[in-house]
Amino acid sequence: MTNKINDLIKYSRVLYDRRLVHASGGNTSVRVGDHIWITQTGAVLGDLSEADLSTVTLEGKVLEGGSPSKELGMHLAMYQARPEANAVIHVHPSFAIAYSTILTEETLDAIPAYTAAFYLRAGRVPMIDYYPSGSEELHHTVARLAPVYHAILLRQHGVIVAARDMGGAMGIIEEIEQCSRIALLTDGEGYPITQEQMNAIDQILGRTWTT
Amino acid sequence: MTNKINDLIKYSRVLYDRRLVHASGGNTSVRVGDHIWITQTGAVLGDLSEADLSTVTLEGKVLEGGSPSKELGMHLAMYQARPEANAVIHVHPSFAIAYSTILTEETLDAIPAYTAAFYLRAGRVPMIDYYPSGSEELHHTVARLAPVYHAILLRQHGVIVAARDMGGAMGIIEEIEQCSRIALLTDGEGYPITQEQMNAIDQILGRTWTT
Amino acid sequence: MTNKINDLIKYSRVLYDRRLVHASGGNTSVRVGDHIWITQTGAVLGDLSEADLSTVTLEGKVLEGGSPSKELGMHLAMYQARPEANAVIHVHPSFAIAYSTILTEETLDAIPAYTAAFYLRAGRVPMIDYYPSGSEELHHTVARLAPVYHAILLRQHGVIVAARDMGGAMGIIEEIEQCSRIALLTDGEGYPITQEQMNAIDQILGRTWTT
Amino acid sequence: MTNKINDLIKYSRVLYDRRLVHASGGNTSVRVGDHIWITQTGAVLGDLSEADLSTVTLEGKVLEGGSPSKELGMHLAMYQARPEANAVIHVHPSFAIAYSTILTEETLDAIPAYTAAFYLRAGRVPMIDYYPSGSEELHHTVARLAPVYHAILLRQHGVIVAARDMGGAMGIIEEIEQCSRIALLTDGEGYPITQEQMNAIDQILGRTWTT
Repeated sequence: MTNKINDLIKYSRVLYDRRLVHASGGNTSVRVGDHIWITQTGAVLGDLSEADLSTVTLEGKVLEGGSPSKELGMHLAMYQARPEANAVIHVHPSFAIAYSTILTEETLDAIPAYTAAFYLRAGRVPMIDYYPSGSEELHHTVARLAPVYHAILLRQHGVIVAARDMGGAMGIIEEIEQCSRIALLTDGEGYPITQEQMNAIDQILGRTWTT
Repeated sequence: MTNKINDLIKYSRVLYDRRLVHASGGNTSVRVGDHIWITQTGAVLGDLSEADLSTVTLEGKVLEGGSPSKELGMHLAMYQARPEANAVIHVHPSFAIAYSTILTEETLDAIPAYTAAFYLRAGRVPMIDYYPSGSEELHHTVARLAPVYHAILLRQHGVIVAARDMGGAMGIIEEIEQCSRIALLTDGEGYPITQEQMNAIDQILGRTWTT
Repeated sequence: MTNKINDLIKYSRVLYDRRLVHASGGNTSVRVGDHIWITQTGAVLGDLSEADLSTVTLEGKVLEGGSPSKELGMHLAMYQARPEANAVIHVHPSFAIAYSTILTEETLDAIPAYTAAFYLRAGRVPMIDYYPSGSEELHHTVARLAPVYHAILLRQHGVIVAARDMGGAMGIIEEIEQCSRIALLTDGEGYPITQEQMNAIDQILGRTWTT
Repeated sequence: MTNKINDLIKYSRVLYDRRLVHASGGNTSVRVGDHIWITQTGAVLGDLSEADLSTVTLEGKVLEGGSPSKELGMHLAMYQARPEANAVIHVHPSFAIAYSTILTEETLDAIPAYTAAFYLRAGRVPMIDYYPSGSEELHHTVARLAPVYHAILLRQHGVIVAARDMGGAMGIIEEIEQCSRIALLTDGEGYPITQEQMNAIDQILGRTWTT
């Protein structure tokens, strides 16, 4: 097993233990060379072994293993649009979903940046409307945003993030969940960091939020 | 030990560790052939061994082991009404109970479907009024609903669910708890998925919510 | 080591892991024959061994071990007043303390009975006003209530409970914390079970709430 | 490894497991003789080994190991100002940060003392305004307060505390998080202990909150 696959198994367990996902919800993947290793349909993130993974090409052709997660399309959209990405996580964290249910329309800035750590890791996080799990509309909508955004809130569903590695992707999930939690705990009355402070972080990282 | 009994012990522990039940609260069972294996009175779900289980017939006759849970009647009601069910879980999750205390009357749609994952797994979840633990009224009321509903909210008490296996039953519990949590975190101002979206899921699953 | 001391160590760890206490807060004890084994000053409930315990007489004379918890007086008050009690737990659970900070005066019914499980295990739970940790006023006030009440909410401080064994005492703590949580989550708008339902439970248990 | 370094590793893990920090956030250090051992940039508190630490002088010169945390300046400020301090923890706990986002200006008494345990351990906790992570302004502001205050709330960022040892520092973090949680759970309507009660604690400890 490569380190990347070890990491996928390790961080999937951490996501489950830290209650960022439950039951057989969510799915995770890593890029190894030209191929994607992704959890299969029905896999439980808290209890994975290599036998729960499938290997597919970047175009989605299954090379080995059982039926890949029905959200494979979202994962591929991220890998195709983001060459730096080697890990993708999709989970159903309670606070992020709760926050998404009170936002009434699509937005490019869904999660208030209450901390610099959030903005540094997650940056601008758009929310897309509800689309059925595994539907082409969902995957196309993610594909449209993926070139600019590496973290997307899926209304009434969950979050998808792409990062250099599983540890990085996990960190983004935690920051999104923490800021969603702060939004709900403070009834939206807390102050995020300022636009100026966000711009300073963007400048350090050389981010422009355009393709 | 059959796999089903292993699963009962494993998932009971997970229910405890994820704080969906505490102390000696709750009870779990599985169907093995014609018999039901159920936790005994006073068993702690977080700390079970096979010695904490009793074997009973579908009519409730004890074949082996000490005194079965006083909620045996609710479990049997589910197994009798639902031939597909091989596992039943009754627990006391905080958010679901909290939500039940603000609902003032019985309803067939107690928990708002904030996510498709909830509606897919739990579907329509009725709430019944408070009846004393272990009482015949409680068991009869569950029996009346069991042919149509596989998950029932018990006011000021907890939740009972039936599923094909323990993993499935555990998943339903988690979804109910997550949506109850969202209801409370958003003060009821979050938007559930639409009736149309729920109908689409029912259609895929071939569910009609009638006997 | 007797089973009781094993239990004290085991359940103290569970109290810590389930976040009902933190750091070196809280203290636990068991009665073994004529003597009380109690955690020492500064002991961490999450990390106890027999060396962290002191043995004292029912009058508080230290027989063995280092300095007993400065709350020894509360423990002794419970044991002296309640011959059935073999275990006492004092911890600082967040929801119970939070709830105590909004109650403005002493009361004999501090925690609303949102569930029968709560009322069965904890029953009527009085709240006493703030007294400094380890003070004689605190210990005397507990002593005054101990003959009638086995669980007492200490304003801005925590909870003390006595029970037949550590498992039972732990269960009472969990029920108090769950009902305090429900009170806060529902902004006091949830409905407890009725007085009639509480009376029925008292009758089954033969409780009168008088000495 | 000295006991202090073992403690640093052990308590950093506990901070992570109890969700007082996540991902690669936060940093911890201990003083061993004339030197400071501090976590390196990018270290994950939940998964440390001695190889993740750097040794620096009190003036910040790196003696051994990779790049120390960019918050080294805050740690040194605490050690320079407080000869009794042998451990410093900086983490990002959700409730403390959430509470900081609703406080609109710097204050010397940020966290209400809902419990005596909080006031005993944390005492008066000032909040400073937002400064970028790792910035000189942040480190100088902490340095200005460190002679009087051993625990400081960093707006939209987290908490830094100094104590005799890691266990003591961890305890202060837990108390701050618990009181922040109570503040948010009670919408600020809970009553803290009185000024008189706080004065009594200060007197016992011989604290004056001046240099």
